[in-house]
Parts: sequence; C-alpha cells; structure tokens
Amino acid sequence: MSIHQLFYPRGVAIVGSMTVGKLGYELMKQVLEGGYSSVYAVNPKSQGAFSVAGFQRILDIPSPIDMAVIASPADSIMEVLEDCHEAGVQAAVIITSGFSEVGNNVGEDSIRLRAREFGIRIVGPNCAGIVCGGAHLYATLESRPPVGNVALISQSGALGGAVLSWAEEQGIGISKFVSYGNRADLDEVDLLPYLAEDDETRVVALYIESVRDGRNFMRAVSKFCMKKPLVIIKSGRTKSGTKAALSHTGSMAGSDGVYDTAIKQCGAIRVETIEEMFDVCKGFSMLPAVKGRKVVIVTNSGGPGILTADKAESSGLHVSTPSEPFNLSLRHSLPQNCGLNNPIDLTVQGTEKSYRQVLEEALQEFDCAIAINVATPYLDSVALARGIADASESSSKPIAASFMAGRIVKESIEYLTSRRIPNFATGERAAFVLSKMASYSERRVELIVSEIDSHASIELPKERLIEPEIMAWLRKNNFPVLPYRHARSLEEACQSALEIGFPLVMKVVSPDILHKSDVGGVILGIPNANEVQAAYERLQVSMEGKRNEGVILYPTVSKSLELILGGSRDPQFGPVVLLGMGGIYTEILHDVVMRVAPFHSDEAIKMVTELRAFPLLQGVRGQPGIDLDQLARLVARLGDILCQYPQIREIDINPLFASSSGFAIGDARMILADLGKENDDSV
Amino acid sequence: MSIHQLFYPRGVAIVGSMTVGKLGYELMKQVLEGGYSSVYAVNPKSQGAFSVAGFQRILDIPSPIDMAVIASPADSIMEVLEDCHEAGVQAAVIITSGFSEVGNNVGEDSIRLRAREFGIRIVGPNCAGIVCGGAHLYATLESRPPVGNVALISQSGALGGAVLSWAEEQGIGISKFVSYGNRADLDEVDLLPYLAEDDETRVVALYIESVRDGRNFMRAVSKFCMKKPLVIIKSGRTKSGTKAALSHTGSMAGSDGVYDTAIKQCGAIRVETIEEMFDVCKGFSMLPAVKGRKVVIVTNSGGPGILTADKAESSGLHVSTPSEPFNLSLRHSLPQNCGLNNPIDLTVQGTEKSYRQVLEEALQEFDCAIAINVATPYLDSVALARGIADASESSSKPIAASFMAGRIVKESIEYLTSRRIPNFATGERAAFVLSKMASYSERRVELIVSEIDSHASIELPKERLIEPEIMAWLRKNNFPVLPYRHARSLEEACQSALEIGFPLVMKVVSPDILHKSDVGGVILGIPNANEVQAAYERLQVSMEGKRNEGVILYPTVSKSLELILGGSRDPQFGPVVLLGMGGIYTEILHDVVMRVAPFHSDEAIKMVTELRAFPLLQGVRGQPGIDLDQLARLVARLGDILCQYPQIREIDINPLFASSSGFAIGDARMILADLGKENDDSV
Repeated sequence: MSIHQLFYPRGVAIVGSMTVGKLGYELMKQVLEGGYSSVYAVNPKSQGAFSVAGFQRILDIPSPIDMAVIASPADSIMEVLEDCHEAGVQAAVIITSGFSEVGNNVGEDSIRLRAREFGIRIVGPNCAGIVCGGAHLYATLESRPPVGNVALISQSGALGGAVLSWAEEQGIGISKFVSYGNRADLDEVDLLPYLAEDDETRVVALYIESVRDGRNFMRAVSKFCMKKPLVIIKSGRTKSGTKAALSHTGSMAGSDGVYDTAIKQCGAIRVETIEEMFDVCKGFSMLPAVKGRKVVIVTNSGGPGILTADKAESSGLHVSTPSEPFNLSLRHSLPQNCGLNNPIDLTVQGTEKSYRQVLEEALQEFDCAIAINVATPYLDSVALARGIADASESSSKPIAASFMAGRIVKESIEYLTSRRIPNFATGERAAFVLSKMASYSERRVELIVSEIDSHASIELPKERLIEPEIMAWLRKNNFPVLPYRHARSLEEACQSALEIGFPLVMKVVSPDILHKSDVGGVILGIPNANEVQAAYERLQVSMEGKRNEGVILYPTVSKSLELILGGSRDPQFGPVVLLGMGGIYTEILHDVVMRVAPFHSDEAIKMVTELRAFPLLQGVRGQPGIDLDQLARLVARLGDILCQYPQIREIDINPLFASSSGFAIGDARMILADLGKENDDSV
Repeated sequence: MSIHQLFYPRGVAIVGSMTVGKLGYELMKQVLEGGYSSVYAVNPKSQGAFSVAGFQRILDIPSPIDMAVIASPADSIMEVLEDCHEAGVQAAVIITSGFSEVGNNVGEDSIRLRAREFGIRIVGPNCAGIVCGGAHLYATLESRPPVGNVALISQSGALGGAVLSWAEEQGIGISKFVSYGNRADLDEVDLLPYLAEDDETRVVALYIESVRDGRNFMRAVSKFCMKKPLVIIKSGRTKSGTKAALSHTGSMAGSDGVYDTAIKQCGAIRVETIEEMFDVCKGFSMLPAVKGRKVVIVTNSGGPGILTADKAESSGLHVSTPSEPFNLSLRHSLPQNCGLNNPIDLTVQGTEKSYRQVLEEALQEFDCAIAINVATPYLDSVALARGIADASESSSKPIAASFMAGRIVKESIEYLTSRRIPNFATGERAAFVLSKMASYSERRVELIVSEIDSHASIELPKERLIEPEIMAWLRKNNFPVLPYRHARSLEEACQSALEIGFPLVMKVVSPDILHKSDVGGVILGIPNANEVQAAYERLQVSMEGKRNEGVILYPTVSKSLELILGGSRDPQFGPVVLLGMGGIYTEILHDVVMRVAPFHSDEAIKMVTELRAFPLLQGVRGQPGIDLDQLARLVARLGDILCQYPQIREIDINPLFASSSGFAIGDARMILADLGKENDDSV
C-alpha cells in the first residue's frame, strides 16, 4: 500500500454500529458533513445511516474500497481484517480502544501480525482517526478544521483533537491529520516521507510522548527536515529528570535531554507548548524562509516595541542598529518625535505610507521584520495592514505582524491573513517564531545522520579493565593520555616517579575499588623522591583485603581547564556523547551538551560553542584559549569509538585536561556491556 | 486633593475643541457613552457637543467641577490651570502632548510648578487618560473595558490602551485605569496607597519603563503588596544589558537586574509579557490565595496533562504523588485505565461526577488544582465545568481550569467564569499563574524596606585608600580578613613572611597600580624564606616609576570556595549588594544575586539559596558545607555599611574565601564617591 491511499481512498467503509449516538454513526455523520461521499456502512445488521447504504460485510460493497474506518468492538477486529483482506482494502484506521493501552498487548499483537500478513497498513488502534483536507475526508470524531498547508501527526488523540478544534481561531489550516494512537503499525517514521513529497503540506507539527526506535526516528526526521520544517512537541520533560540526566553520563540514558539533543540534531524545531506550536506553524505556513537573524521592529507604540526587542534578543535574534544611510533617510522622512533606532517607533502618527516606506527600506538591510500596531478605536488599522502587506510583497523577506488588540483589529488581521502576513497576539510571540524559523534555515544543510559502522569488537580486552589498561587502550585509539606509569612494586614506583617528575599523583590500581578517593586510594602532590615510599605504603594499606594490582602514577597538571567527556548508550537513540566543564561545576551547574553519535567534527564544534563556559575555552582575561578544532575531533572520535565497540556500555573521561598547549586525559573509567560491571572508577 | 476625587469627581470639565473628530469631541463622546453625565464642555467658542452645554471657561460652569480633562493645545494649558484653580478644580488629566517627550521640559516644568502651587494634582501630560468603572467614568480615547476588580496603571498610553481593548476577550474586568504619560505629577507611587484601600480593586497591574525614585517606588510597592498583589511588567530587559550588569559590581548600577531585584524584594510579581500579565491578574482576580505549592492536575487527556506537569515543575510547583489512602480511594472509584498518579487522567470517560469527586478529595491534601478538559464535540463540557466548580465551592482552595479548545468550549468557559473559575488557554499557563500566586503568598510577610540610616561619614579616611588600609578598615567593621602584613622594606617583608608562614602571596602596594597582575605585581606560592628577597625585589621593579608603598603579604589559602561580595550605588535604587561565586565563573556563568540594601540577614539567606552554586556552599561529595548564617550576616552587614557610608561608591571583596572553618577576605578594592577615582584594585 502507498500512504496515498490512506488519504485519497477510492472508497471508505465505516465499520460499526449506525445506531444514533454510536461511534460508527458519529463517524458517518462527520465524513458526510465533511463532503466525502464514496462511503459505505458495514455492520452485522447491514444498518445504513443518512441514506448511505449498509452492508453486512465489506465484501458485499459493490465499489472498490481502499480504506476501512473501524469502530466495531475490539473482539470483532480480527474478523473485520479478514474481510478487509478479501475485499482488497489497503488501509485500516482502527478507532476502537481496549488494546495495549489497557494492557491487552496480546490482542494488539495479533492485529499487527495479521495485518502485516495481509499487507494492510494500520492507523491505531485507540486513535482519533485521520483527516485529509484535499479529499474532504474527515474520518475522525474531532472538530473539522479549515483546510490549509499544515499537517499534524499526534500520538495523543485527545491532544490532536484539541489542536484541530483550535486551528481555525489560531489561523491555521490543516492539510493532513493522523492520530496514530497505540501505533500498532504506522507512525511518524512512515508518514514523514510521504508528507515530505506532499504538495499540500508545507510544515508538519508532531506531538509525541515517546518514539519506537530512536535511530529510525532520527533518520526519518533528518531526511524530512532537509525538505520541510518539522515542529515537535514532546511531553515528559521534567518527569524523566533532565537535571539528574545532565550530571552523570550513566544516567543520561533514556532521558529527555537525549530526546532534546536528537530532535535538534536532526534539524527539527522543538517547542514546549501548544501555543508555541501554533505560532511556529503559522510562521512557516505563511512566510518565506528567514535567512538571517537581523530583525527590525517597526511599531507605533514604544512599550510593546521594547518588550518585543527584549524577547527578540533573548531568543537569539539581533536587534541591530540601522545603518548610517538608513538612519539618515529615516531622519528625513519621519517626524521628529519618532524613535529612529531599532525598534523604529512611528508613534501614534504612524500611517500606511510610513509603515510601507520604513519597512521597505529596512528590509534592504535587515533579514526580517516585526510590524507592531497598537490599535486605537479612532485609527484605521486596515490601512496600516495594507502598508505592511505592500512592503512584504515588494521585498522577498518575511514580515510578522502583531496587531493589538481584541475586536478593534479583527478586520485588519483578516486582511493581513489574506495577504499572507501572519499576525501574532504579541510582538514577543512573533519574535520567538522568527528566531525558530532562522534556526531552521541555519540547520537545514548537511543533516545526515551517520550510520553506525560497527565493524568489530576487536582490540578491546574481554576481561575486566583496570585503569592502566583503559589508559593504554585510549592511547592506542589516538586519545591523548597523561604520561602515566603502572608500578607493581616499590622499586618500580620509585623508578616511575623519577621518570614522571614531581610533584606527582599516585593512585591505587584494584578492580575491586570503585571509589578510590573514598578509601584513601589517591595521593596528590607528592613533592619529591623521599615521599614516594610513604605514599606507596599508604596506598598498599588502602588496598588491604582487595585485589592489589599495584599503583599508577601521573604528573601533576596545573593551569589547565578540566573537562569531562563521556559516552553511554541510550535505550532509544543508541550511542550518545556528552561534553561538559569538569569537576563539581558539571554536577551543580549542569553545563553539559550532548549529541547522538556518530557525528562529524563540525557538529562537535557546535557542541563546544553551546557550553555556557565556552568563553573560558576561548580564553579570557588575556589567557590563551584551547585548540577548539582539536577538542572537536576528540569529541567526534569518542562518538565513533562508541559505534565501533558496541560492548562499551559507558565511558567517562574525567578529567580531560585542556590548555593552550594541548589535551591530556587524567583518568577514565569504562563499563562493558557483557560484564555488566564497573571495571574501574574515577577518583 | 484626595485621589478619590480623580476617580469619583462631582463634575468633569472636558477642555478642548468640540468640533467633530477633535480630541475634545472624541473624549466627550467616550465619557457620555460610558454613562457619566455630570460633564461639561469648555473651549473659547463655548462649543457644546451631544447636547452637553459648552462654556468659555471652567469658571462659568454652574456646578461643582472636581476634575478637568484637558485636550487643548499645549500653549493653552497654563491658562487652563489658572481657571481650574479659580474654579476649585482638584485634579487635571492632561491628554495634550508636546512636552518632555519632545524635549519641551521647560513647558512641563512650568505646568508642574504651577499645579503644585495651586494644589492641583495632575495626570499626564501626554497620557491616555483615566477610567473608573464604578463611576462609569471613561475619560480616555481608548476602548471601554468591562468593569471588574483589576486596576491598571500604565506609563505607556498606547500599551495601556491595548490592554483595555484586550481585557474583555481575556476575561479581565477593570476597576481603575490610569495612564500617567510623562508623569509631571502623579504616578504609581501616589496611586498605589489609594488602590490598596480601594474596595473595587483586588489586584493591580503596572506597566513601567522606568521609575522616578527607586526607593520611594520600593516603599510604595512593598507597602501595597502587604495588602494586595501587584503584577509588574517592565520593559527594557536586554537593552540595559543584564549580562554585562551581572558580571561586574560597577556595571550593575542602573541595570535591569537591579529593577528585577527591587521588584521581587518588595513582594511584587514581575511578568515578561502582556499575556502573562493578563493570566496572572485573572488568577488573582478570581481565585482565593494559593497557600502552598502542592498541585494536583486532573485531566481527561494524557498529553496536555504531562505538558502541564512539566511546566508546573519547572515553575516551582510540586506535582507530588497522591497519598496512599487517596490513591486507594482513586483505585476504588475510577475505571482501570485511568492514570492514578499526578496528573490524574480520567481519560475520555471523565464525567461531571468524577471531576467533582476527584478534585474534592484531592484538595484535602493538595494546595491547589488544575482541571484540564480536552473537549470533543460529542461531550458535554458544561457538565464537566459544573463538577469542577462544585468542587471548588466545597473546598476553599483554588482550582484553575484549562478547557480546550476553540468554539466548542465557549459556553463552558462562560459557565466557569460565572462561578469564579478562571480558564486558561493551556494547562501550562494555569500552572504558571498558580506558581506566581504561591510566590506572592510566600512573600507576603515582613516586607519592610529598611530605611537608610546614614549616620555619618566617620572613620573612613578621606584620602585615597591603599589595599592595607582597606583591609584594616574592613577588619574594623567586623569583616573577617586574611592575616596580612604590610611591609615597607625588605627587612619588614622578611619578618612579616615568617609571621605569616609559607607558602605565601606577596603583592605590590601602590595607589598608581590598578591592575596588579598586569604589571607582574602579584607573586603566588612563595615557598620559603629564601625566596622572599627575590620576590620582594621583583615587585620593586614592577613599581618603578609608580608611587611605592611597599608590599602586602598574605598566607596561601587552599581548599576554600571563592566568593565575591560587592556593593555599589544604583542611580535609581541606591545601595545594592551583589553576591556571587568568584573567579571566572562569575564572569562566564553569571551566577550572582543582588539585593537593594539595607536588608535583614534572613533576606541574605534567601540570596545565598538563590545562587545556582548553592549546593556547593552546602557541601557536596561528603565535603562539609560553609556556615550559611554567618555568610548571610556578612552579606547583610555589607548592605548596612553601604548605607552608613554614603561616600563609598563601590566596593568589591574578591575573593571572599569560604570553607567549613570560616570566612576570610583575600583582596578588596573600594571607590570613593568624592574622589571619583579607583583607589586600589584586585589582582
């Protein structure tokens, strides 16, 4: 089946009771009222409705039926599927509930398997149905939204329904709607490729609570975002404990933070509320692409202008000052009491002509504009709307409007909409939308989710690893490690100390000691050869009763920044790399960033710049910065390593010393999947 | 005059042309249409309008006139004021523009002085007028809002007007509205005391761009907030450079950060957008106080419930798990597929009865509730609204509703409103409102802005200070300083070094050297007596050509946290204290908090807990924390010191070493106002 038949079926059978008030009846009513007529009723009593003929079985329908909308009881579904198969039905939208959402996984699995066997694609069960505006097909119990170019995919039927009800008043038209409920079969991964090619769809909004397979999801999303924008709202942010997730590589797995990373990494836009979703969709639906962050704000009231500028700046747009020539021209053309900086305040004297002229001229040097009109009952807002729309037409750049407020701007907002200028309740919301649109334009290039090249489990010892082995392995894989020495006797320790130099650090090596510091297993700042023996002996004591593999010695590192670099496996998204500022600041201030691996080093550069402490890495107060390219290569390489060695469950490089002279790993621990046990631990 | 006469005048004169389309005419139309009838027209031609009599001068009006609304040309105002005086008019609302907003400060000053002389209070000039719903008085050109219990004071006329236009559709009624424009006289400081006592007003919304006198503002706001909630929207957040402000004590002056601190310190609620303002006002306007942060979310759709829970948590509410008995009771009464944790998901089967029962029972253990209804066309939402309203009535606790979406919930939202249940577009917005209301309840106690007790400029040397003098002065004022030694010769330095102990720190002392590190004027880690002479001599070299006041020696401090503690004078709010995590982390991560001084040490405790790095101060990873009470006392004491010594323009204590064993100041600099010059500088 192609998805096209789901949205444009030659005929539709509604399977379920046609008694007034029953789901089947309501569905039939909706479908007919929506304007789709090749529809037939199917139920054991051959009951029809609204002068639509009823049949006992789908097989009995004399016309071709591509799609069945099923609302009959859960225990009848298997039989209905048999009939669908025999009748050549390609797709079934199963509204009926009572499956995995109430623990009936067996029932759902049977449906899935049987449908697969028959080659029938399924939406649902336990879903709110589908809509295709172009086909006038409203196979759903939810409100019928106006037709437009926004497609909506929702895991939650009720939320999807709310969005449909709201669409009209929010100025949004719907091209396609799919509520996939329990997703026994179809979900966004299957639907996005179709919508990418769908001429009726310009932007997709997606509501998810979880994904089925993280990497498939990323592939589908990134491919889609190469062609069209995707706005995602994912619930469950705090529940999954973002904070806990960020502080520790191990616990980041499965967290909302990984979802967040994955969504952004694929070039999709994550929003937090339904209103943001509407706003952003409206922007994409109506405006040309926002190709830059320089925004000009033109207003007839100072206050809302400033509030908008605040929000624009904090959203990452640049409210830059007009150029000297533009400023000069403004000074010539506008009354004296106008504000000539950005926001440009035309004051209450702003006219159709001044809005048009100022916006036209501004958009020669700015990337986009926000036009604010704080209306008063005694001013003609439609004229201002005309000036704005004219300016938008003569420029190829986007203008978002905020006409305030209430009834007095109703007519002018309708006029704006008719000329493809989206209006937002406040200038702040317009600013938010333009910034998200700018992000989309920036991210649109090179969104290839690298595939995992798991070539082998070679090289990595199968047995448990102790710190010197991990360090050796890291070095072998071209990671810079501190010059260390592994000593199994006092003599070796003394010799190693001389080779390392003073002051030095000495630590226990024992597969049984997870937290070296806790048992006094770490001695810092050993100043000279005389102290080596005492230190060695103290460490021997701390290993009593434990397997003793000697000690490891490192030079003391000073004047370096400490980073952490970690990797783990998310149950949904697979290998994930985490980079952060080391030490307690990671734990307390959560200054960490993540990426789903593998990724290129230019993506790693982005990670580095996203750290709040990025200025530190660049160098502050005259201190030289670190080599950001080299750091990015290290970060990307850890991602590759995680893909190559599937048996690494978790790796923590902490600290990674970083200074202008280079990088060096000062400690690392690793957990292997097979052993399922920690092999070594950081101090 | 009492402000009461402004809102409830015995008679109103509208001064200005009554020719159709002129401001005077439009004002007359508004006032009459609003239902106020004791109104008279005044203009040189004695022109009347709408069968209202016209007079040449106010004096000619035969009835008592308490208030004049003036829209006559700017150059006529002085004369009109004379007439007002003679006619016994108490208050003048000057709509006319053309004063300080276009640089005509002279004109505005004359008006202010003359009005003061006459004892006439002024609103404006360049304002949008006033509204008093109770008096049916709409002396404004803006839309007439419905009457309610929200008062609005706006510095911007246009923004105020937009809010009035919007009020009805946002479910807000207005008790009083004042647009004070250029505030030649009255502003929020004068109006708040009246509104605090006004039975018609339950909550005040205030839009400001700046304040006239920060400390007066704080006094008025904190006094008001003891009685009623105040919601403030202040524009100009990014413009004034919050980031820059946070990184350095000196630049924090006049910044938006100080406004933010001052607003919160007084117990007012700052919001960022007009929509937030509406939402929060609606909550206060309709709901009982929110006395606690435990919120229960009851929904009939999972998705919006989770989104709401996310927002509630991130806003500081606690989405706690139902108690065991409540959970048990839920399990008995609800169908199996309902979600019994918080959010409680009644699913699409949720009924009037289940909403009522669950909410009633929940509010026995929760502090407030959010009731979500994702409506579908085939469900009766009004019945659900009734269940919710009943539960709210039988409990004394607040319930906020979010009925979604669009036309299909219009009727039920009206029903909710009639029963004083505010409805919000999304559950997220309801959560935001409840959290702000909870904050208000928490802050409502003990909001006394301490007055500055500037008893003298004693003790502080009048001349420029060098580091040892600053340290001595700090010690005298009971601040803990590191044991330092000031040495003016090599012999003194050697002797001091022995007293201090090794390793030690030696720094130059010269009033001419601002940045000691830059000239090599700081030597760290001097390990033993042998190195003292070399260090001393190196420092001598770095002072060549500068005034040489010797060197200062400190012990080396290790294993301490470094804080910064600073004070400066804001041009609006006066002395401000800043506390932050020291070092580059202050600059990069901006982890600093502020308070307007003076304040009690319990306020200082709050500052400490607001630091993102607060967990560090409490102690992490088994390390003991610092004495938070002692830190709070130090912070509060710096505030007191700033008030006592007005000549201190700026003081920077950096670092303030902090560990479990106590506190010690490691460096400090001070700028005195009279000298206007930096006296010493940190390393």
